[in-house]
Order: sequence, then structure tokens, then C-alpha cells
Amino acid sequence: MTASTIDLNSDLGESYGRWELGDDAALLPLVTSANVACGFHAGDPSTLRRTCEQAAARGVVIGAQVGYPDLAGFGRRFLDMAPDELTDAVLYQVGALDALARVAGSRVAYVKPHGALYNTAVTHEEQAAAVVRAVALLDPGLPVLGLPGSALLRHASDAGLRAVPEAFADRGYTPQGTLVSRREPGALLHDPAEVAARVVRMVTAGEVVATDGTVVPLAAESVCVHGDSPGAVRMAGAVRAALAAADLGVRAFLR
Amino acid sequence: MTASTIDLNSDLGESYGRWELGDDAALLPLVTSANVACGFHAGDPSTLRRTCEQAAARGVVIGAQVGYPDLAGFGRRFLDMAPDELTDAVLYQVGALDALARVAGSRVAYVKPHGALYNTAVTHEEQAAAVVRAVALLDPGLPVLGLPGSALLRHASDAGLRAVPEAFADRGYTPQGTLVSRREPGALLHDPAEVAARVVRMVTAGEVVATDGTVVPLAAESVCVHGDSPGAVRMAGAVRAALAAADLGVRAFLR
Amino acid sequence: MTASTIDLNSDLGESYGRWELGDDAALLPLVTSANVACGFHAGDPSTLRRTCEQAAARGVVIGAQVGYPDLAGFGRRFLDMAPDELTDAVLYQVGALDALARVAGSRVAYVKPHGALYNTAVTHEEQAAAVVRAVALLDPGLPVLGLPGSALLRHASDAGLRAVPEAFADRGYTPQGTLVSRREPGALLHDPAEVAARVVRMVTAGEVVATDGTVVPLAAESVCVHGDSPGAVRMAGAVRAALAAADLGVRAFLR
Amino acid sequence: MTASTIDLNSDLGESYGRWELGDDAALLPLVTSANVACGFHAGDPSTLRRTCEQAAARGVVIGAQVGYPDLAGFGRRFLDMAPDELTDAVLYQVGALDALARVAGSRVAYVKPHGALYNTAVTHEEQAAAVVRAVALLDPGLPVLGLPGSALLRHASDAGLRAVPEAFADRGYTPQGTLVSRREPGALLHDPAEVAARVVRMVTAGEVVATDGTVVPLAAESVCVHGDSPGAVRMAGAVRAALAAADLGVRAFLR
Repeated sequence: MTASTIDLNSDLGESYGRWELGDDAALLPLVTSANVACGFHAGDPSTLRRTCEQAAARGVVIGAQVGYPDLAGFGRRFLDMAPDELTDAVLYQVGALDALARVAGSRVAYVKPHGALYNTAVTHEEQAAAVVRAVALLDPGLPVLGLPGSALLRHASDAGLRAVPEAFADRGYTPQGTLVSRREPGALLHDPAEVAARVVRMVTAGEVVATDGTVVPLAAESVCVHGDSPGAVRMAGAVRAALAAADLGVRAFLR
Repeated sequence: MTASTIDLNSDLGESYGRWELGDDAALLPLVTSANVACGFHAGDPSTLRRTCEQAAARGVVIGAQVGYPDLAGFGRRFLDMAPDELTDAVLYQVGALDALARVAGSRVAYVKPHGALYNTAVTHEEQAAAVVRAVALLDPGLPVLGLPGSALLRHASDAGLRAVPEAFADRGYTPQGTLVSRREPGALLHDPAEVAARVVRMVTAGEVVATDGTVVPLAAESVCVHGDSPGAVRMAGAVRAALAAADLGVRAFLR
Repeated sequence: MTASTIDLNSDLGESYGRWELGDDAALLPLVTSANVACGFHAGDPSTLRRTCEQAAARGVVIGAQVGYPDLAGFGRRFLDMAPDELTDAVLYQVGALDALARVAGSRVAYVKPHGALYNTAVTHEEQAAAVVRAVALLDPGLPVLGLPGSALLRHASDAGLRAVPEAFADRGYTPQGTLVSRREPGALLHDPAEVAARVVRMVTAGEVVATDGTVVPLAAESVCVHGDSPGAVRMAGAVRAALAAADLGVRAFLR
Repeated sequence: MTASTIDLNSDLGESYGRWELGDDAALLPLVTSANVACGFHAGDPSTLRRTCEQAAARGVVIGAQVGYPDLAGFGRRFLDMAPDELTDAVLYQVGALDALARVAGSRVAYVKPHGALYNTAVTHEEQAAAVVRAVALLDPGLPVLGLPGSALLRHASDAGLRAVPEAFADRGYTPQGTLVSRREPGALLHDPAEVAARVVRMVTAGEVVATDGTVVPLAAESVCVHGDSPGAVRMAGAVRAALAAADLGVRAFLR
């Protein structure tokens, strides 16, 4: 997809009590959509409220970043939840975050699964459908963010929800257009300039260069920049600068 | 307070995963207000949703029974949370339950603290105010249920919230009108007939007989019947029968 | 395997705080080995200590029933833990229970995975090996209890540990000698007399009748009787009575 | 107390899953005793095992830093546990850490309460006694580390345990020799040089200068240097350098 503006989303609100993760205050001026954790994989209530307040103050759209109930694993380990359990867990998380977002003067405006749930929802029909069912039950006006071609986005569309495909700024892609597993080389790109140039190409040409050099078409309405790596703020800044240099604006996909 | 109808409230939704507690299905036909747990001291999302559905089906009003984040202690141990942490924890819990209640066709219509938070909020000014602040931030139309004369109800009134005093059907009272501590004899009454007669007197005469025989005035807009004791259902049934025999109806305080 | 005595093992210590599960006090006189939970899927420290004290008083051997860190799911949902994480989680659990067992005058004398970890360790090589590695690191003298033919028992043997195959008193078997999935009909037998007769046949003839009528050989050094179902105590009692009537004794596999 | 060597202890193993806290690898070469978390307030099993391995490799003595079961509060909020619950929670934690320490070639050699439990055990007779009871039940040879004059150390002595008083390198002291509350100014000292000089004076002269200038006697067999603040490593390094410059050695109180 080519566009003159693009949404940048990032995972935020992932601190937990004494443990800080990510630099929300520095990232928020750089993104347009904030995937805020909901307490199951990260995010204590006070962290979540503070992140919602900062997002609201910046005009950043708030999404519910729902995950497995697994603090020790940061939601990065597949958990074989029954579909009904998962639906109810998503309802619970979105509701909790929405209360904190509303008190901050905003609201939960979309839903994006986190970590292992995100990856599982690419191919696991039951869990993908379970996430979608929760969103549809709660508010059919809430879009779902996910991987292009994923079961999640297909179920979302089938349920009448807006399905928003996203690209990843700093992840390697296979020739098939899927993400290189984090266990394999090339999974993560580290050079801010290279990442920034990639994002510009994603936005202007709707394509990305895979690990083997293949040019892969990539339709994305949002680009995810990571928030919890050491160089996260610098990389997001480089992406913003490159977009500006290419005369491309950033705008929330919901605006 | 004398009245021709009274609200009966009970703690529900306190199962957790494999662990069942209370007989929600049997209690719901007997009460008019359900204090549904919110996941911090009890209640997994699926339990909460099911309880909300049953309450909605019965026309029972749903309240958020907020507690300390302490599953192992069932919310019955004082936790020295900072006021801001507590406010945010209450927002989180009420929001989570409200999502499940709304999907069930109802909504959270009042807030009642649970266990040690309930007892703490009788005298602990900061924690009482913190709970009230959360309710006021979220929805000033939500009443707060608590002990007559408690800091909680005073702060609620001061904040412009409806403060709803309640009596306990099966708890012993001191001559000062406070509850006998659970660590002391006389804390709990076990005879359904005696408990039922007490409730009728509370409702018709606005008074209760304390452990030393003193007759104590007791203004209550709701009477709490316990849900998690072995004889809970039988006791609630006896209360209902005695109220009916005395030509007293039951009606949610919110109706 | 035929034998004149057999070990009966059962899952115990699975209460959690306010939530009671199983009737440990009634089951302990009926079994010879107690698989005591370790706090990750069930069992708060005080429950575990009490169960260890009761087991020690009865001369019942204590095993560590290690599970996934998943209270809400009671350890019954597969969690994709990395092998090293799992090894360390098993070490932690066994160590914790052993301290409580020692204070009760006993000790952890064997290890048995619980729930989804038990089922996973039948075929999941990495997780099976990870559990075994923990046991071998801690004490190569600790036997491992598991399903006959499982990866768990194979890894245990390979590591020089004693691998103890067990049968299930009230579970249906397939013609291949594996357990019928709990999601299929015939997974659980409910008639105490039938279950008792099955156990006698397992012990005397070393065989079990599968759901299709096939007679399947079954080499077991221990028989698991469930502890958390409503009729658990009655069923265990029926098994004990049938064994006695057949002149078969019960004895811990470790005695 | 004057001495030619002193023990330096620090809180370690306080990361949790994805969340890192403190720089254990950098601190371990600087201290002689490691208060390793036990999973209740911080420290997942893999973090704990790694910390134990690093401590063992450095010859640093391992202590169990037991805390309240409160990850969200990092064990820094008083929790009103019943004495028996607390005793059992301490047994559980020490046992768990000991298994990981033993696999690392070391063992738990002392016990030190963490955070709010540490502070509570200064004056709360029941909780102090409950901690001591756990240690005495498990191994009367395990010393207990605590504040000079605390209920904890008194109960430890009364129970026949070795009671080890400690000083804090970077905490302000009142004229009464107690710590300045973290909620008041002067609670924390930030200048490495000043802190280092204080420690030298504690060791050589057995005294510390209180916030009002009073010189207060301070008998300490160990000095705690913090591990989780940004400048922790630099401060511990300054303390070590100052001790060396004053011809003072460091040695574990247990060596």
C-alpha cells in the first residue's frame, strides 16, 4: 500500500511495579498509536494509567495490547487456553484498560494481541477466533491489529470488524512475507538508518526486501516500532526523521 | 431505618479456575444485589462472566466487589497499598468487571470493597478516600456500599457519591454498632431462624441486638447475606422466607 | 506386572488459600504415596505443610507434584516453557516442597509431573528431558513417576534415575495402551466397583480392558487414584477393599 | 564494633522474567554475601539459579532474602500475614532457593528478610517470631541478618540462632540509631565518596553520624550496599576502594 501518511504503533506500558521497561515518555512523541499492556503479561494498574495519561496528553491513540496471563514469561510463551477462557480473558483485559484510559480522557480504540498470543493468532484458528469474539462482543467498532494474512485478521473481517494489517520496522521477513523467527539469524535489524529506509519503502512502495533479497509486497496500514529494546527511542526517531525527509506524515490509522 | 422492602446483597463470583466457592446459581434467586469479585482476590474472567450472565438473567443488580491483589489470602489480609496504587487498582478491577457485565447485558452498578479492604476502609482515611476517588473518577453515578459510620461512606458522601449503609445478617454486633471481630466469639451467627428474625427486625425496626443484649439502632439500605459458607443458601432462604412472612419485599437498593 | 502388593498414589495438597480441593485427611489413610502439589499449579505453603504433616503422620511417602506456573489453569494448560526455564521451575518447586516435608519429619522422595506437564512429558522430548534434568541435578536417587512408554520415563532411565510406570484406576485406555483424552467419551470411569475390579486385574494380571474391549498389557508399579473428584474417597476406599478381598496388600513403591 | 575485616551484603537476583533489575554480575565481585531473592517479591527460578551460580563461582556466600508474596509491590508493602502463614511462606522460599543454590554448588547459608518484611520485623513481634520460627525449624545453624535492636534479632537470639546486626552504607540514620524513613528527606545518601567514608567509620569506629549530626554507636557485623539503584555498582566500588585504602579487608561474616 502506498500512502502519504502512515501510522506508527509501539508497545507501551510494559513496566511492572518496581521493574521498568521501555521509555514510554520518550517514545510517545514519536508514535501515533500506543499498544498499552493490560496487566496479564505486563503493566500494573498505575503504570497503565500513567501511560494512558501520557498517550492522551500527546493525542496518541490507545490500543489494548492483550496477552496471555503469564507475567513470568512476559506473555511470550504459548499457553493452551480454551477458546472461551481466552475470550473472557480478552474481555477482562480490554475492560480494565478502558477504565484507565477513560479516566485519562481517552479510551481503548483498538485491540492488538501481544507476544505469543500475537504469533499464535496467525495460524491458530480457535485462539484467533476467540480474540475476535471478545472484541466483537465488546464493541464491533474496535479494529484489530495483526499480521497481514493472519487468521486473526481474517476472523476479524469475517466478524465485521476492521482488520488492520501492520508491518514491522525492524524485523526480518522471509520470501513468503512472514516474519523470520526470533530463534533464527536475521530476525532483528539493528541499524537505525537501514530500518528507517525500510519503513520509507514499505510506506511509499508497499514492499519490503526479504532476507534472501526477494522484494516482497507488503500491505500495511501501520508500522510497529519496538519499544523495549535499548535503542528503541533512537530507532523510532530515525524512522520519524526518514519519513519526514521523504515528505511522509505520520497519522494514527484511526484518525 | 424501617422499610417495606429491603435489598439483599451477597458476595458472588468467588471461584477461581479449578476451585469452586459458593453456590452462585442457588444464591442468585435469593438476593437482589450481587457483589461480584473482580479477579484480584478471587474470580477468574470466565467465572466472573458466568456470574454476570446469571445475575443479568435473574435481574440481580451487579456491583464490583473490589479487593486487594492477594489471591493466596483471598483479600482478607491488610495490604499497605499507597493511595494512588489503590485508586488505580480499583479502576482496573471495576473496568474489567464492567466489560464482562456489559457483555452479559448488564453493567457494574455499584462498588463494594471486599474483605480486608472493606474493614480497612472503615477507619483508614487514605485507603477509604482512595477507593472513593476511583469510583468518582470512573462514574459519579455509582453508589458505594459500606459499613454505617465508616470512613468509606463519609468520603463517598463528601465526594457526592451515594453512600449506601448495609447491615450483616449473620454477624454479631458490639454495643457500639460495629461488627464483632472474626477472631472473637459471637462473630458469626449460625442459626438460620435466628438470623432470619434479626433481619426482619433490622428492616422493620431499624435495630439489632448486640452481643451484650443492648438494642442498637442500625440504619441500613441493604443487608448482606454470606455466600461462601456451607449453609449460605439455606440461611439466605430462611431470610427470604421470614421477610415474606412479615410482608416485606426484597428489592435492589438501586431499583 | 503381577505383584502381591501395589502402591496407590494420589494428588494431594491442591487447596489454595480460601479454596479447598480434595479431602486430604480422608484420602491419606487409603494411599501409600502422596503426590503433593508445589505451589505453581496449586498449594499454598500452609496447605503444603499441613499435607506433608498428615502424610508423615500416616507413613505415606511424599512426592513432588511439579506443574506449570498457572494457578488460574490449575496446571492443566500446556505452557511452552523453554527447557532451561522448566528445569529451573522444577528445581524451585521440589526444593520448596522438600523444606516443608523435612520440617514435617519426612522428605520429597520422588517426582511426578502434574496435569498438562504430565501429558506433555509423554511425547515432548525437550520438556520431558528438562524435568528429568532437574531431578538428576537435585538428587539422582529420586525416582520419577510417569506414564509407561512416555518420553519422561525413557529420559529418566537414560539419566540413571529410577523410572516408575503407573496405571490410572479410573481412566479409560485406548487399544494402544494410552489414556483416552478427557475430551472424549470413556475418559473417566465412575463406578467404584468397576474401578476396583480393574485395579485388581491390573495388579494381578498386569492388564487392562481398553474402551473397545481389547485386553492391553499394562506394567505398572503404582496405581493412581484421583483425589479431587466428588467421589474420590469412596472410590479409593472401594479399591482398597477390593485389593484386600483379593489378598493384595498396598505398599509404597519406595518401601 | 571495630574490626579489621567486614562483610558487605547486597540484594541480588531481583530480576523477574523479562524485567531486569540490578547488575548482579558487576556487583558480585564487590560483595561477600549475596541476599538472593526467593521468588515471592522478585526472582524467577532461572534468575535465581543464575545468580546462585555467579555467587558460587565468586565464592560469595548466599543468603535467602525472603519477602511477602507481592510481586506487584516488590515486597515493599506490609502484608498482614498470620504468623503461621508467614512461617510457612519463609520455609517455602528458603527451600526453593536452597535447591537452586545446591545445584549451583553452594547452599543457603543465612536468611535476611526483604523490604516491608524487614522493616516490619523490627517491631512486629509476631511476624519477627514467625520468620525466626521458620529458620529454627529448617536449620538452627542458619544465621539471621537484621537491624541492630530489632525484634527479629532478639527473637533469633532467643531461639538460639546467630543474630547478625547490619548497617546500611547509604541510608540516613536518626539520632536513635534507626533508619530515616524513605518517605523523609535524608533517607538516602547519594555521594559515593561520602558513603564510602561512612562505611570506613562504621567499621573502624563502630559509629555513624545521624542526620542531626549526633554520633551514634553502631554495632554491625555486615554492611548492606544497595544493588538496585542506578549508581549501585559505582557506590559499592567506592566502598571497596575506601576499605582497601584504610587497610580493611572484606570477608563474609560466615567465613
